[in-house]
Amino acid sequence: MGVDRAKLRWNGWGWAARKDEIAERAEVWTWLAAELGMPALLATPGRPLEELNLPDCRLSLQDRVELSGVVGANQVRDNVNERVFHATGRSYHDLLRLRAGDVSSAPDAVIYPRSTAEVLAVLACASRKRMAVVPYGGGTSMVGAVNADRGPFGTVIAVDLSEMDRVIDVNPVSCTATVEAGIYGPALEKALQTKRLTLGHTPTSFEFSTLGGWIAHRGAGQAMHRYGRADDWLISAKLATPRGLLTGGDFPATSAGPRLTDLVIGSEGVFGIVTEATLRVRPLPEVSEYRGYLFRDFESGAAAIRTAMQAGCACAMLRLSDAEETRFQRAFARLNKPFGAIDHVTQRYLKLRGFAGNPCLLIAGFEGDSQTASLARQRFGEIAGRFGVLALGRGAGEDWRKARFQGPYLRDPLLDRGVGVDIIETAASWSRLDAVYKATRTALEEAIREALPRQDACGIVMCHISHAYTDGASLYFTFLFPRRLDGDIEQWRRVKAAATEAILNNGGTLSHHHGVGTEHLPWMEREKGALGLEVLQAIKSAVDPEGILNPGKLVP
Amino acid sequence: MGVDRAKLRWNGWGWAARKDEIAERAEVWTWLAAELGMPALLATPGRPLEELNLPDCRLSLQDRVELSGVVGANQVRDNVNERVFHATGRSYHDLLRLRAGDVSSAPDAVIYPRSTAEVLAVLACASRKRMAVVPYGGGTSMVGAVNADRGPFGTVIAVDLSEMDRVIDVNPVSCTATVEAGIYGPALEKALQTKRLTLGHTPTSFEFSTLGGWIAHRGAGQAMHRYGRADDWLISAKLATPRGLLTGGDFPATSAGPRLTDLVIGSEGVFGIVTEATLRVRPLPEVSEYRGYLFRDFESGAAAIRTAMQAGCACAMLRLSDAEETRFQRAFARLNKPFGAIDHVTQRYLKLRGFAGNPCLLIAGFEGDSQTASLARQRFGEIAGRFGVLALGRGAGEDWRKARFQGPYLRDPLLDRGVGVDIIETAASWSRLDAVYKATRTALEEAIREALPRQDACGIVMCHISHAYTDGASLYFTFLFPRRLDGDIEQWRRVKAAATEAILNNGGTLSHHHGVGTEHLPWMEREKGALGLEVLQAIKSAVDPEGILNPGKLVP
Repeated sequence: MGVDRAKLRWNGWGWAARKDEIAERAEVWTWLAAELGMPALLATPGRPLEELNLPDCRLSLQDRVELSGVVGANQVRDNVNERVFHATGRSYHDLLRLRAGDVSSAPDAVIYPRSTAEVLAVLACASRKRMAVVPYGGGTSMVGAVNADRGPFGTVIAVDLSEMDRVIDVNPVSCTATVEAGIYGPALEKALQTKRLTLGHTPTSFEFSTLGGWIAHRGAGQAMHRYGRADDWLISAKLATPRGLLTGGDFPATSAGPRLTDLVIGSEGVFGIVTEATLRVRPLPEVSEYRGYLFRDFESGAAAIRTAMQAGCACAMLRLSDAEETRFQRAFARLNKPFGAIDHVTQRYLKLRGFAGNPCLLIAGFEGDSQTASLARQRFGEIAGRFGVLALGRGAGEDWRKARFQGPYLRDPLLDRGVGVDIIETAASWSRLDAVYKATRTALEEAIREALPRQDACGIVMCHISHAYTDGASLYFTFLFPRRLDGDIEQWRRVKAAATEAILNNGGTLSHHHGVGTEHLPWMEREKGALGLEVLQAIKSAVDPEGILNPGKLVP
Repeated sequence: MGVDRAKLRWNGWGWAARKDEIAERAEVWTWLAAELGMPALLATPGRPLEELNLPDCRLSLQDRVELSGVVGANQVRDNVNERVFHATGRSYHDLLRLRAGDVSSAPDAVIYPRSTAEVLAVLACASRKRMAVVPYGGGTSMVGAVNADRGPFGTVIAVDLSEMDRVIDVNPVSCTATVEAGIYGPALEKALQTKRLTLGHTPTSFEFSTLGGWIAHRGAGQAMHRYGRADDWLISAKLATPRGLLTGGDFPATSAGPRLTDLVIGSEGVFGIVTEATLRVRPLPEVSEYRGYLFRDFESGAAAIRTAMQAGCACAMLRLSDAEETRFQRAFARLNKPFGAIDHVTQRYLKLRGFAGNPCLLIAGFEGDSQTASLARQRFGEIAGRFGVLALGRGAGEDWRKARFQGPYLRDPLLDRGVGVDIIETAASWSRLDAVYKATRTALEEAIREALPRQDACGIVMCHISHAYTDGASLYFTFLFPRRLDGDIEQWRRVKAAATEAILNNGGTLSHHHGVGTEHLPWMEREKGALGLEVLQAIKSAVDPEGILNPGKLVP
């Protein structure tokens, strides 16, 4: 159940054969043009694969022979498709580059190891021959973490884990599973679910991302409240480094010093390559129910989430859109039912109930045994009631769930019509969340306004709380804007920088679940402090003395 | 509400004025002598303070002047009491040494800083002058982690945090508290509880240990299932190092690379001194109820705990004694009511219900709002029922709770009568737990047998599961044995080594909640691997290039 890469878009999201439903629907583009203050949204197709300027492969014959000696000649691949596919991840910045035909970060070759021993041997060889190595899982990074930058090295190879996707052991007694890191989300869940178990880690990239990637970027899935972050479900991992294997013990807990596993989570391929992991899994839930709730404003919805988390209310997910996201998604849904109609109550009824302004939609998930799920639903309902909620029932929740992995597909048709769409996400303590929210929204609005292609144009800034904790929550901003076709990368860079500064200035973290990669690297010293960065560099030097691993990511 | 150190035992546990109730009770000693196969247990008092061989203070006048310049002359103390009090922690090995008059690990002086800035300045000074620095909180280490070893340095100072015990901020919105690290358990809880909040971290050492110590040794409290380990409740900490301050951001979660906070937890003073921490706190529970349950054997009790954890049953504590611990404690309770009578059901009734053999006592805690606590009690009752439980009600639970911090006091009167008592603890996955349990028990029994003072003597080995997780649990062994007065340290060392080897050979961790210190150091390479240790050493070198911090602990 691996993913056939030949069937994926080389410069966009997901399956190439999937039809972009909105592409041909004029009413969508008329509406969106009005939203963005543009007279029309004209076609802006990306460059075709044939027109790319792929740099020559710089892998020397001798290096190829050595690598082939380790993994076999068939596992060293450098045709155009392989190199282009491994050039970048799938951030907005990556898509802009790919669509413009820029694949300058393509690796010289892609290596497909089939065991931890082979990965170790590849790394030892690359270290000896001074080749940069970029670990590659599903390639869906939103922060440029798999771009095959060569740093100071002459050659750069991608090490693709997708042929290491075996489930090594499922242990129903300890509720654990040991799995190779290259496994994709659906294959992992299928293997677990045949044993009535689940990991429950479902990021939006679920269908196209791998276990190793989830660990390396310290990810969190949509139903994280129940299933935990990578930090929570990872018991131990094998990290192949140029100096050998680093392995944390698979203990339920330990006080024998700092946990090596904590250095693997979020290491983004700069310390080593995650080849195998042991995970906490759970029984499949008896019940999995998603419901919609409407709040009069973002503050009362956020207060309900905070109260529920601090009361220990066992929801699987609490996801609150702000007024603008709710408005935009409702308008879009009305145009475009297949993408999830959240418009289950009429405007008239809303007015009657006092929700005439700009209400905010919350989707709550309740999963587990029937008793736990039903108690959580009941308690969340009680708490939300204190904050003046309107319960919308299961329709809105199930619509959200049907579309839960579809969002990224929208970027390609938008880009085809000159519309930019990016996201930025963070987390902060509850007492700082409102300041981070307001400052980031303002920064995005202003930065977008300053870099628009025409005077009457405007951007759209939306936000939701995607994950919550007792002490704080994440904020996930989505913003749309007409692209400046004469400088869309510079336009993106200015907006990204302004929003990031606003986040850091107000006490938010650089990323809640996307990672650092190349795109957040300039702010890492702000995030970790100069001494903190030195510590990370010291760890890197200990395991990767030549510095070959994923140059330009995570540590400057 | 700091602890007046002058009122503490210098060579034993807790308050000096506290009467050892069992000391004068002949029936206890007659019974225990029989248990240990000894004709009698004779008095073996420790050496008085006046007879110690305290090494001369090696702090030079110039160094004293420099340190006084940083913290003030009153905060540099080197009288006999100060130096002796800071010589060791409170492990069995420490007690043997103190009682024998060995205070060779006394520091040359004790420094009492009053701010993070002062700690940083002390460390900078010590690094420049090459003095070893031993961080000191409450001094209750069970693994030799505060012994003032000087390593390769001429001078060693203890840095005592007890005058840094302010509560800096309690934030009821985010449910967080920021507190100086020298605060003792009771003072911290008092400050939080006046605001209807609690940290809920109650290790057995609670009354005499500090926040900084809990973080530095990666501790876990008795009601950890509800309140979490230090790993769970620590949001961020200030770590003062010779190269400056290392601080993790106080975000609810982050994916911006490895968390610096994870390097602070369990760092045992070798990377720096924890001066301040921000913690997740919770509303005070409405209900806090402890109950006793009896199982026919250890296996069925362990299976009930495993099932409850994997079903997400929200107990605050599940603590299961094995048959020998249950038997010994019941016999002891019968002799000695004040120490907790667990004998709430008669032997006759037990026989009637089919518990005539050697049943195992489980104490379960249910805390939280009344709905959560009552649901947890009901669900645990149901699950335990499937494994043939006899519910004992609240009496046994409340008896346990009353005595929850009293255990360590028993060591002193036992040592006064020639009886050794030590503990060893670990954790392992559920599928390995039985093997670890059996192998460690056997190793302890055999090693004790091989080092007894006389042929007919014997030891007593008891065990309980103290903390559980979905994927495994801890094992906490307590063992009593007649001391070999001609070589009690060697006797201890052989027993300790045999049990540790058994733990590691069967997949247990070196420690679940006591840490590494000096006593587990010889096995750290087994635990972390050679490369893992190099990584820890690289981190240390980055923040402590002279290697002055806590020599001989955690990293070899």
